[in-house]
Amino acid sequence: MEVITRIDTMREKLISSRQVGQKIGLVPTMGFLHDGHLSLIRKAAQENDIVVVSVFVNPTQFGPQEDYEEYPRNVERDALLAEEAGATFIFHPSVEEMYPENYETYVEVTDLTKVLCGRSRPGHFRGVTTVVTKLFNIIQPDRAYFGQKDAQQTIVIQKMVRDLNQNVKICVCPIVREKDGIAMSSRNTYLTNEERMQAAVLHKSLEMAQKMIDEGERDAKTITKAIEKQICTMEKAYIDYVALVSLHNLQPLTVLSGDILIALAVKFGATRLIDNVIITV
Amino acid sequence: MEVITRIDTMREKLISSRQVGQKIGLVPTMGFLHDGHLSLIRKAAQENDIVVVSVFVNPTQFGPQEDYEEYPRNVERDALLAEEAGATFIFHPSVEEMYPENYETYVEVTDLTKVLCGRSRPGHFRGVTTVVTKLFNIIQPDRAYFGQKDAQQTIVIQKMVRDLNQNVKICVCPIVREKDGIAMSSRNTYLTNEERMQAAVLHKSLEMAQKMIDEGERDAKTITKAIEKQICTMEKAYIDYVALVSLHNLQPLTVLSGDILIALAVKFGATRLIDNVIITV
Repeated sequence: MEVITRIDTMREKLISSRQVGQKIGLVPTMGFLHDGHLSLIRKAAQENDIVVVSVFVNPTQFGPQEDYEEYPRNVERDALLAEEAGATFIFHPSVEEMYPENYETYVEVTDLTKVLCGRSRPGHFRGVTTVVTKLFNIIQPDRAYFGQKDAQQTIVIQKMVRDLNQNVKICVCPIVREKDGIAMSSRNTYLTNEERMQAAVLHKSLEMAQKMIDEGERDAKTITKAIEKQICTMEKAYIDYVALVSLHNLQPLTVLSGDILIALAVKFGATRLIDNVIITV
Repeated sequence: MEVITRIDTMREKLISSRQVGQKIGLVPTMGFLHDGHLSLIRKAAQENDIVVVSVFVNPTQFGPQEDYEEYPRNVERDALLAEEAGATFIFHPSVEEMYPENYETYVEVTDLTKVLCGRSRPGHFRGVTTVVTKLFNIIQPDRAYFGQKDAQQTIVIQKMVRDLNQNVKICVCPIVREKDGIAMSSRNTYLTNEERMQAAVLHKSLEMAQKMIDEGERDAKTITKAIEKQICTMEKAYIDYVALVSLHNLQPLTVLSGDILIALAVKFGATRLIDNVIITV
């Protein structure tokens, strides 16, 4: 498997495959691959002839106070894991290759990005939609794979693809969890042992919410309160948001009905973790 | 020649051409075609196997006080003229087809759009880059043709293509002028006879500037002043801007050197006209 760092080289590598009608799958990542990423790569390998895994810690999606510098990186390890999972190429450009001097063009989904993580991280989704558009234009994939863990991201990207008429099918794959239920994330490496143990409360609180709904609860406030109460039992936890929203427009619900997204963002020490579940009532 | 109104139909029409390696040229227009547009279509027909002329009065590039409603439209006449010039398809979608309910995704070039027409028409270029990106994604052209009359537009679009890694070559074609030198524009139809006669001053003042530079003048202020003075002799003329800027970054020049854009925007009555010349010193 080849690690490609230049945009022109990446394009050239794919020309002949595309000409003979081979299908190309793209798995955009920021690297430091875990089983969540690998499940996307495996799925892409099942469904396509060529799988490109991009590994790029994208500076435009980090806020000035966020963890761009500290974000864990290990492209050699990523290359081995990606190959094993079925990747054909790793695309690993430099920041200068993706954002040359005087770079100034951005893609923005304006409304779906005003809430949840978009509200806590201004500019984050503009960075995501910009880099994903660039990757779509460079790779021209038939399918692109994203993890359900980043629920709002998948919804924003699907909206962008529809609005801009981008020629790609978006495939969303289930959250992969550790044994204790915590959603896999490259940022889990930041956690101390104590924070790591307490972070399991995220998934537990979502399970509790699911159970409340299964038992007939339909009042959003009651469920929100119960989730917040459970998270607050962990002394290292600082809630950013607990949201019960419509899956389609991310607007808050009062009475639950239809397709619901329950999404959480909680800080454990300096580490902000997210988790979510989709429930159809 | 076919007039196609649906995005899906347009895509389907081009699949087989693309598969056999035919080259596709796109000429994006707002319709009401004149010889300027036809020169683009003829050029596209020379250089490509398939020529798509889009005819779409794009609402997102008009300000709330601008002429979106009044903008002249005649797609039947456009179809005849375009076919004669060598077009294969007219793509003429409705506003609802291009901007369905809850549309919310925009492409923006942030710095080059702060000056000249971008300053006078806030949001204009965001509308242009968004609709052009949509057209690129729908048509997937090998080449796209734009007129030099909209000088800033060509520079903004070339920047967008480079920044977002869009897969298309941008071809810029010379300004086509009436006998008296006025640049062809669908908006010329708005002018009264008197305004029409006075508007010839735009081209004349650019010729004068060219002559001053040929004779050795290098001071931007002196040339700007001379242009403004000449335009002001016309009583119907209201200057929006007279700009001597670097062709590459559109920043104002004090002393002329390198590739220079002299760009004018002047209102005659309610009609805003633009014109420009590129000079290499």
